Amino acid sequence: MKAFVHVSLKKSVLDPQGKTVQAALQRLGYSQIAAVRQGKSFELDLEPGLSEPDARQLLERIARDVLANPVIEEYRIEVLPNGKR
Amino acid sequence: MKAFVHVSLKKSVLDPQGKTVQAALQRLGYSQIAAVRQGKSFELDLEPGLSEPDARQLLERIARDVLANPVIEEYRIEVLPNGKR
Repeated sequence: MKAFVHVSLKKSVLDPQGKTVQAALQRLGYSQIAAVRQGKSFELDLEPGLSEPDARQLLERIARDVLANPVIEEYRIEVLPNGKR
Repeated sequence: MKAFVHVSLKKSVLDPQGKTVQAALQRLGYSQIAAVRQGKSFELDLEPGLSEPDARQLLERIARDVLANPVIEEYRIEVLPNGKR
């Protein structure tokens, strides 16, 4: 089973990296981009044999404890059905 | 309109950052995680008034020229319908 954990800064936290990308895009003429925020994504391969609810619970724990800093970051978990991608 | 551009290393490129995360997870007892690959994600706000096909074309250009290095990275574009998230 494959899963993604997307980690991004909370809306209330300043994102200088995203601001810099947006400024660069403006300079390059991409004025249609109003705002950019940058985050991280983790693609995880899980050992076979885990049910989807178990996988979600495990990923929730991993995301909260290891991959994201819950003080300033939020995360979103996406589990891909078996055999996809 | 909101869109995501997910950038990750090509499968054929070594990902030491992902390997390190996986080794840390193993040490912490998360043995169900077989592999980890790390990538970047960009959340872009587009100015209103763009049609979805135009937005996709614009994002394709931005992803290829600015956000990803097509020599070693691949990208995936996700356009969220208006009003979502």
